[in-house]
Amino acid sequence: MKVVRDPVHGYIQLGESVIRLIDTPPFQRLRRVRQLGFSYLAYPGANHTRFEHSLGVYHLACQLTHLIDDVGVRREVEIAALLHDIGHGPFSHTTEEIIWGWTRRRHTDVEDILAEHCLAEVFEADGISPKEVVRHIRGETYESQILVSEIDVDRMDYLVRDSHYTGAAYGLIDDERLLHVMRFYGKRFGVERGGLQAVEALLISRFLMHPTVYYHHVSRIAETMCQKAIECMLEGGELGGEELRLMDDTTLFARFASSLLDYPREIAERLNDRRLFKRAVYTGFEDLPGDILKYRRHRRRFEEEIAEMAKIDPGYVIVDIPPPPEISESKVQIITRERTIPLEKVSPIVAALERSQRKNWRLGVYTPPEYREEVRRVARDVFQIRREARQYRLDDPL
Amino acid sequence: MKVVRDPVHGYIQLGESVIRLIDTPPFQRLRRVRQLGFSYLAYPGANHTRFEHSLGVYHLACQLTHLIDDVGVRREVEIAALLHDIGHGPFSHTTEEIIWGWTRRRHTDVEDILAEHCLAEVFEADGISPKEVVRHIRGETYESQILVSEIDVDRMDYLVRDSHYTGAAYGLIDDERLLHVMRFYGKRFGVERGGLQAVEALLISRFLMHPTVYYHHVSRIAETMCQKAIECMLEGGELGGEELRLMDDTTLFARFASSLLDYPREIAERLNDRRLFKRAVYTGFEDLPGDILKYRRHRRRFEEEIAEMAKIDPGYVIVDIPPPPEISESKVQIITRERTIPLEKVSPIVAALERSQRKNWRLGVYTPPEYREEVRRVARDVFQIRREARQYRLDDPL
Amino acid sequence: MKVVRDPVHGYIQLGESVIRLIDTPPFQRLRRVRQLGFSYLAYPGANHTRFEHSLGVYHLACQLTHLIDDVGVRREVEIAALLHDIGHGPFSHTTEEIIWGWTRRRHTDVEDILAEHCLAEVFEADGISPKEVVRHIRGETYESQILVSEIDVDRMDYLVRDSHYTGAAYGLIDDERLLHVMRFYGKRFGVERGGLQAVEALLISRFLMHPTVYYHHVSRIAETMCQKAIECMLEGGELGGEELRLMDDTTLFARFASSLLDYPREIAERLNDRRLFKRAVYTGFEDLPGDILKYRRHRRRFEEEIAEMAKIDPGYVIVDIPPPPEISESKVQIITRERTIPLEKVSPIVAALERSQRKNWRLGVYTPPEYREEVRRVARDVFQIRREARQYRLDDPL
Amino acid sequence: MKVVRDPVHGYIQLGESVIRLIDTPPFQRLRRVRQLGFSYLAYPGANHTRFEHSLGVYHLACQLTHLIDDVGVRREVEIAALLHDIGHGPFSHTTEEIIWGWTRRRHTDVEDILAEHCLAEVFEADGISPKEVVRHIRGETYESQILVSEIDVDRMDYLVRDSHYTGAAYGLIDDERLLHVMRFYGKRFGVERGGLQAVEALLISRFLMHPTVYYHHVSRIAETMCQKAIECMLEGGELGGEELRLMDDTTLFARFASSLLDYPREIAERLNDRRLFKRAVYTGFEDLPGDILKYRRHRRRFEEEIAEMAKIDPGYVIVDIPPPPEISESKVQIITRERTIPLEKVSPIVAALERSQRKNWRLGVYTPPEYREEVRRVARDVFQIRREARQYRLDDPL
Repeated sequence: MKVVRDPVHGYIQLGESVIRLIDTPPFQRLRRVRQLGFSYLAYPGANHTRFEHSLGVYHLACQLTHLIDDVGVRREVEIAALLHDIGHGPFSHTTEEIIWGWTRRRHTDVEDILAEHCLAEVFEADGISPKEVVRHIRGETYESQILVSEIDVDRMDYLVRDSHYTGAAYGLIDDERLLHVMRFYGKRFGVERGGLQAVEALLISRFLMHPTVYYHHVSRIAETMCQKAIECMLEGGELGGEELRLMDDTTLFARFASSLLDYPREIAERLNDRRLFKRAVYTGFEDLPGDILKYRRHRRRFEEEIAEMAKIDPGYVIVDIPPPPEISESKVQIITRERTIPLEKVSPIVAALERSQRKNWRLGVYTPPEYREEVRRVARDVFQIRREARQYRLDDPL
Repeated sequence: MKVVRDPVHGYIQLGESVIRLIDTPPFQRLRRVRQLGFSYLAYPGANHTRFEHSLGVYHLACQLTHLIDDVGVRREVEIAALLHDIGHGPFSHTTEEIIWGWTRRRHTDVEDILAEHCLAEVFEADGISPKEVVRHIRGETYESQILVSEIDVDRMDYLVRDSHYTGAAYGLIDDERLLHVMRFYGKRFGVERGGLQAVEALLISRFLMHPTVYYHHVSRIAETMCQKAIECMLEGGELGGEELRLMDDTTLFARFASSLLDYPREIAERLNDRRLFKRAVYTGFEDLPGDILKYRRHRRRFEEEIAEMAKIDPGYVIVDIPPPPEISESKVQIITRERTIPLEKVSPIVAALERSQRKNWRLGVYTPPEYREEVRRVARDVFQIRREARQYRLDDPL
Repeated sequence: MKVVRDPVHGYIQLGESVIRLIDTPPFQRLRRVRQLGFSYLAYPGANHTRFEHSLGVYHLACQLTHLIDDVGVRREVEIAALLHDIGHGPFSHTTEEIIWGWTRRRHTDVEDILAEHCLAEVFEADGISPKEVVRHIRGETYESQILVSEIDVDRMDYLVRDSHYTGAAYGLIDDERLLHVMRFYGKRFGVERGGLQAVEALLISRFLMHPTVYYHHVSRIAETMCQKAIECMLEGGELGGEELRLMDDTTLFARFASSLLDYPREIAERLNDRRLFKRAVYTGFEDLPGDILKYRRHRRRFEEEIAEMAKIDPGYVIVDIPPPPEISESKVQIITRERTIPLEKVSPIVAALERSQRKNWRLGVYTPPEYREEVRRVARDVFQIRREARQYRLDDPL
Repeated sequence: MKVVRDPVHGYIQLGESVIRLIDTPPFQRLRRVRQLGFSYLAYPGANHTRFEHSLGVYHLACQLTHLIDDVGVRREVEIAALLHDIGHGPFSHTTEEIIWGWTRRRHTDVEDILAEHCLAEVFEADGISPKEVVRHIRGETYESQILVSEIDVDRMDYLVRDSHYTGAAYGLIDDERLLHVMRFYGKRFGVERGGLQAVEALLISRFLMHPTVYYHHVSRIAETMCQKAIECMLEGGELGGEELRLMDDTTLFARFASSLLDYPREIAERLNDRRLFKRAVYTGFEDLPGDILKYRRHRRRFEEEIAEMAKIDPGYVIVDIPPPPEISESKVQIITRERTIPLEKVSPIVAALERSQRKNWRLGVYTPPEYREEVRRVARDVFQIRREARQYRLDDPL
């Protein structure tokens, strides 16, 4: 039994076989994958990694299975909690869509990783079915709701952790309380009536973190720059999708630096020196014709069109159309004596969050500062932006 | 005026010209230099960097110069606080002695860096003398005591920051109080009588952080492994001292990975996978013949001798003889109405710290696990270790 | 200049004349007036007082006037912040309505208190106009918006403070941020656009504190018991309204204990031993005929009617009809470059709070446990409660 | 099972019979006994009570007995933890010596209290032996070392709690760690080797809290004033020792207020208005002839002598000779594989604490400000104070 000190949870206890799983190259790789992608460019403290997050989620999962009697194969759920992010590519969510595009694998598709010898031998020695672990990670079992549902240990860890490292104080979660009110009602996972307040607080925290941290324009810009550089290498045949999936932040940048193509090298330098593209357009739903979301997949075409019209290299125009926001947590089930009720029915404030969330959505067009005016003019035409896009200026940290 | 959110100090305000200094490649490099070298292998949260530490020190320096009237060229002292670590090599202290050996430069020798165009033009525009800034960083002015003395803003920041990211709760510093009691007595920097307690607390914090964090054997082992790999590349002509000095954690590992030599590649893999050398010997002053410290420079000869006797490759034996500990803070001056008194005279507890500190000193011999027994046997002979070296086992985190 | 350590704000600095105001009997009395009335019966830590709250509000007011240039008579606003609660009776809000009923004074009607010699002589020595101070406390000046408005330093202090002492972690306010975004737009006090998030967080905090802390049924029950005992003494001629207004928690209980009437003695014992009345009815708007609120003033008649029907002493029936909740903060003005906009227009979540708040409103009928069933039966008739009043059970702490 | 929110430990769970013990008048009385006597006059937040401290100690005891297998009658130890302070008189330690003098009972002599019907019936219903509980409280069993020894759950709670409420940040205890390293070695309670650091931190915390909080001169002055008023009433026959023992802070002050004697009334007013006596003499061991401690019991005679010489009423002279400080924790046993070692042997810093502690000891002579000069002159003669007693001025909070 080892003990690891964690700034968020205090001490995390790790048994023999968990340590053996942790001490494998695929798991150690997570030490080099930043939890929040490029948020460290907006929040200097946000260098935390999927490694510590995974330990934290494992810790919470163990506490929860200990409190809930009716979890079947407790052990495998805990292992799934530990390994749930082992399939994340470099800079976490930054590379997720690209990897999906080139490999048809999501970060929860981890069969091949768990089959690697170093992990497989621990499973075998311990009588753990990797197949079951994968099913839990993919959310295909009812027990996996602990880990993958509207309100789960994954979220509980990352909200507090992101708050600790960014300094954004909104991520205030009452872990202890939540663990005591979460339980199964039949095969349905939910929260007891007495925990209503704690759930509301968690959802509100998440809501407050979105604009300040998760959607911060500096992170968005850096992420999309990185994505474009990766696509350039993938299309140039310098990088493979499967290969990308198993890289880390460090090796990805080393590949950028040694690329034969100019673009990835330039982007890597720009990201390192924080010479980022700037917002030429940054505007919300209300300023856009309604059908923009339909065109999400045609991002590239937009970029090329704008670049052509502005007479600049298409590498210097990034169009960012994020998926529309959703707060699925309003579907959390509240468990009373005789039934479960969806949270949104009980909590007017939670029902209001979803609407509010849409305010945070932004269409962005990014370009180096010297092309900003020209790109803005062109892009507003292309997207038929109805009126003067209001520059939204909240925190604009370093 | 920009504002950056910092998990330690809340908000840090940055004026126009400070932002321009920060937005230069040499300063942005600090984002990729971990504050605590390899401590992240013992404390998963310890991924914080010299970048945020530098902002923190700048923040404290501004607060302090604002409170103290008699600081002469306030502006240049503040800039020195911002830039005081700009000369640190990859993994901070890990590479310090090597860089000194190959370039005769310390991390405070930053004339050449400040002369780089991107920084120099800001200095000129602002009428700041880079020469004076360097003198402050080197501790050659009386004002620089704010930054480089027995008790200074550098320490105040790193103790709290290291505590925040490691989770080691001992780094409890009462910043606010300390800032209000620090002042000059003539040209001597010190702390008013009323701040005695706050200083004691700071020194005790530092004392408690030493064995758990700063001297943690896992960090020591990883650091010495990294050092040996660097030396291998320097001696093999694959790397230059000046070049090393301006690299960052990421580029150093990229160089390890692409080395033509086997050793750096192996070490990089070991560090990435956390397959570290183990302690064959780990023993304190009391178990050693008195003159060991004399031989600090002969580390390499010891390594070779042990390797030869154990019949293994000398790359697999690391001898770690750290410098003897000192707590210079016991020299802090306490300012009374009519004179200054050294802290150790007033505070018996501080006087006790220095003696206690020696307990933390350890001679280590590290080697891959498979050679451990053999190396232990041989090394104990070589160092004439008097009796069974007691394995010291406190926390042994992941 | 003295310095007081405050668990919420760290250090509070107090100048000469402020210390003299603090060192007067009317201000020291606040040490014996609990901030949250009887909340300590639900939250064992909630023994904090109006004294420390007043220091905290003074501290924030000084910071704010320091940051805002356009505050006219800064000094008197700060003094008003210090003294704003000097008119509170025992157990703070518990006695507010009763005092109003018997003296026609609110807790902001403090002319007579400020005219007491010990305070008046400080005002005179310092050239402070007590008349102006009173106007600020009453919210009759535009500067007083700092202290008495939709979002003010009073709220900023109590939300954090109540959170610190109850342990209810929801009161998370970003003081530092708020102080930097609060300012005047002409004579209108508001918050800059950049502070939207911080204001939302404050309002949400307040919203979350309401059901768990401020409306906790245990506090409500104890408060109404205490009120009934006071009314008994006032009506019995044992106590005067003016006298009550200047008492503290301790002297009020001493008077209960030495009353010639049985009822106050019994209630005091019950409160001391925590043998409280229980909820016979506890029900929300939706279960009541719409016009109940009209009858708020007829509480006593309801109590007598129920007691008569249940054949028990009217002292054993308490009807609690709180005023309908309102969140006036949705009226906070957000200041943009060219105008001010009410918060509720910009923030859908804040607009949702008011509706949600109504959920927390409860009509309560309280009685000793032995009469509970009977009183419930009768009271549900009297109030024509439409269906089975659902017992609302969230936290039910000690 | 109920749950109470505690600002220090988060949530405290209480079972059925524990709730019944808590809901008795003798236990509820602890809500009205301040944990730190008159410290609230120096630290405005220090209004916390023996009630919440008792819950906290109970909570820690339960966690500890849960972790330690070899605790015999676990249940009774936990109950003892809950009730360990039930014998404290008003203002806790303030009245301890007086109660001992007049009743020969210490605050751990609680047989009679536990025999009260309301408590006795719970014991009987639950099969708990009150006799055993008393033995645990008195420290007469080996299991009671958990509660009453050099390092115990009592201290662990109060150090953190006092820190939380005073705002003095030194009380930093790593509860979680300590609980995991505390255990029995045979019948000897101690701390495992791995917990050395955590114990050092606790002892250092306590050391730092002493001068700033526990020995703060404002508390000492107020305490001794209160003691003198109590003695006056006891000697005047207005109060009995047994009666005093079962009073609380509130009832004591009510008795002062209604006394027929002038002195208690004056003192109560002075304490309420914070018109305290001042230090005429305040000096350490080094300024005194060695035998002063011998005269501790003759305090009254000194007071009379000084008063006579200064020609003032003896009620206006208070001589305060505290017991010499001791840090018994240096006797904590550190448990290694094969034996236990006293902490002071292993930790030079702990050994230094005891010496340092003596620095905090002060002989005080207190008197109303108008007699200060005269009393100082006389008292320095009486105590043969060797040289100008240096006024010691650290924090001097409100």
